[in-house]
Amino acid sequence: MSGEFTVVARDGANGARAGELVTAHGVVRTPAFMPVGTAASVKGLAPWELERLAPEMVLANTYHLLLRPGVDAIEALGGLHRFMGWPGPILTDSGGFQVFSLAGRRQIDDDGVAFRSHIDGSPLRLTPEGCVEAQRRLGVDVAMALDVCPALPASDAELEAAVAMTSRWAARCRAALPPGGDTMLFGIVQGGLDLGLRRRAAEELAAIDFEGYALGGFSVGEPPAAMWDAVAGSAPLLPDARPRYLMGVGTPRDIVHAVAAGVDLFDCVMPTRNARNGLLHTSRGPVVLKNARWKASDEPADPACDCPTCRRCSVAYLRHLYLAREAAVVVLATVHNLHFFLSLMRRTRWAIMTGRFAALRDTVLAAETAGG
Amino acid sequence: MSGEFTVVARDGANGARAGELVTAHGVVRTPAFMPVGTAASVKGLAPWELERLAPEMVLANTYHLLLRPGVDAIEALGGLHRFMGWPGPILTDSGGFQVFSLAGRRQIDDDGVAFRSHIDGSPLRLTPEGCVEAQRRLGVDVAMALDVCPALPASDAELEAAVAMTSRWAARCRAALPPGGDTMLFGIVQGGLDLGLRRRAAEELAAIDFEGYALGGFSVGEPPAAMWDAVAGSAPLLPDARPRYLMGVGTPRDIVHAVAAGVDLFDCVMPTRNARNGLLHTSRGPVVLKNARWKASDEPADPACDCPTCRRCSVAYLRHLYLAREAAVVVLATVHNLHFFLSLMRRTRWAIMTGRFAALRDTVLAAETAGG
Repeated sequence: MSGEFTVVARDGANGARAGELVTAHGVVRTPAFMPVGTAASVKGLAPWELERLAPEMVLANTYHLLLRPGVDAIEALGGLHRFMGWPGPILTDSGGFQVFSLAGRRQIDDDGVAFRSHIDGSPLRLTPEGCVEAQRRLGVDVAMALDVCPALPASDAELEAAVAMTSRWAARCRAALPPGGDTMLFGIVQGGLDLGLRRRAAEELAAIDFEGYALGGFSVGEPPAAMWDAVAGSAPLLPDARPRYLMGVGTPRDIVHAVAAGVDLFDCVMPTRNARNGLLHTSRGPVVLKNARWKASDEPADPACDCPTCRRCSVAYLRHLYLAREAAVVVLATVHNLHFFLSLMRRTRWAIMTGRFAALRDTVLAAETAGG
Repeated sequence: MSGEFTVVARDGANGARAGELVTAHGVVRTPAFMPVGTAASVKGLAPWELERLAPEMVLANTYHLLLRPGVDAIEALGGLHRFMGWPGPILTDSGGFQVFSLAGRRQIDDDGVAFRSHIDGSPLRLTPEGCVEAQRRLGVDVAMALDVCPALPASDAELEAAVAMTSRWAARCRAALPPGGDTMLFGIVQGGLDLGLRRRAAEELAAIDFEGYALGGFSVGEPPAAMWDAVAGSAPLLPDARPRYLMGVGTPRDIVHAVAAGVDLFDCVMPTRNARNGLLHTSRGPVVLKNARWKASDEPADPACDCPTCRRCSVAYLRHLYLAREAAVVVLATVHNLHFFLSLMRRTRWAIMTGRFAALRDTVLAAETAGG
């Protein structure tokens, strides 16, 4: 049944675990990384290209889709899966993070948040009920509750207020989208780097009962080591029997640290955004295409990679396309970077299932220091 | 042997013919349309996407490749085929057209043309010998002779001077790249809309003996009907036993007119450039993605099309991606438009071989008047 989550293996020495989350559009094998398809498209990828990469789940953004083309339009066109030509599981972010980023253009009160569209300035309103109703109508597999996400550093009072409002909104989201349907609902734990606050938030959300729990408010300005510590302290506070999702994170290094803490799901714009900026993630560290050292290299960007880009293109060719601003480099680099992240997750899952996770983590942490 | 051309079928009522041109990288079945990969990339397409579209031959541009990444670099990386990950036939334009477009930044004399790079302003020189030598070193299947291409309207004196210099340069190109190697050489007939001049140019080039002959200087400002008449008059002036190539042309309508005149090869930026501008060529006429009429359409852009884009995406989704400036729309629209042109050529060839060309031409001419 949609929403069932089974832990199929655990690492003995830490919190790492491999799981299976049942959705209406297939089983998500965790730990999993969700490519970001903000506006119903993973930037630069045709639907068949995304399908070939075979991610377990894809993320889209409620805020962006509300604004354009609108929930009515997508619902009338058969729902988000059909609209974007992606038959697998979809999770939508609630849009809270985006709305709260609209500094000076939004007003928050206990009922919800009023804001102006970044596209045409038209006035809009997001409430907990409206937000989950929009996601249900999009037909997604996982909806996220509307949360309040303050930027770090934030004062204790700001963090506490954010947690309190997030909990009240979470209850209203759950009431608007009760369990048992095809769209699951995940609650979001805020609290910044304050583990006491994170614990309180986690307990309040667990009492409401969601199909999954997310850690929000990370990777918003804090140093990586501080985030690793806080994630290590926060993840175990979330119910063990449910999937745990670390929102908007992160580097391969962030990911293996978080997996060790017991996190199951990740999303991040890094592989796709870096691809557009000519940075490839590889087994030998980051490859910056504009660097002259790649000018005459007939090797693939990552000699250890079996993605279509590395099987077919030299790094010198990718560099040429990047310098010539050829659109194909976006496709080629995005395919490679997503393959790199998805392959990292598949290897991570396999390592957990075969008792090799610690070794894999050490390899990943070492590789990230090389490159050029 | 590379350079062999066989006419395998003719239409009884006009000059249309189906042929096979043997190259070092496969047989080009004509009439054929060459997608434009100016800088060693068909804009927006990964090499495997281009391969799936299965064009008979691809065009690249000597001028652009000379400037970036340079012939030395491509030769050192194994030649243009390997560099761009395209194993099929490649024709390179000589670069003359691009150089002569650099108004105010080039100086022409009988030896060749001096110009400044549009990228960094550095001084460069293109001679007939240097031009074909560059193409031979790129390892292409068909090199184009360096020609002089005046913009229309041009005075009789300008046109005559262009033809005279083109003929002198053609002889030097042939001397620099004699027959028998893996790289064929095509001569280019200029002469504007003056059929007497075109005849003289064709005779001078035929006397030199090339593996193929091109009509240059069309689609440079003249009205379509004037071009159709001039092409109809010019194509039969080229040797019947060799492939005929109408450079830089054109619309489906231009193409069927030219095929009827006996033209075998085409190239044009139209399908790829129009794709980037949100215009799709379809069996029901042009589809302009920004038009509100497509907002709620769950149909493919072309219900009669079997390309990956039309099999998978609604025109409403394409419209959304276009309005949201999502990079994927370039891929999706380019795949569709090239499929449309390549499919037109396959149907044209089949029609010639089965005595149905006149009917196909009428269908194409009728479809081009619909759309929206």
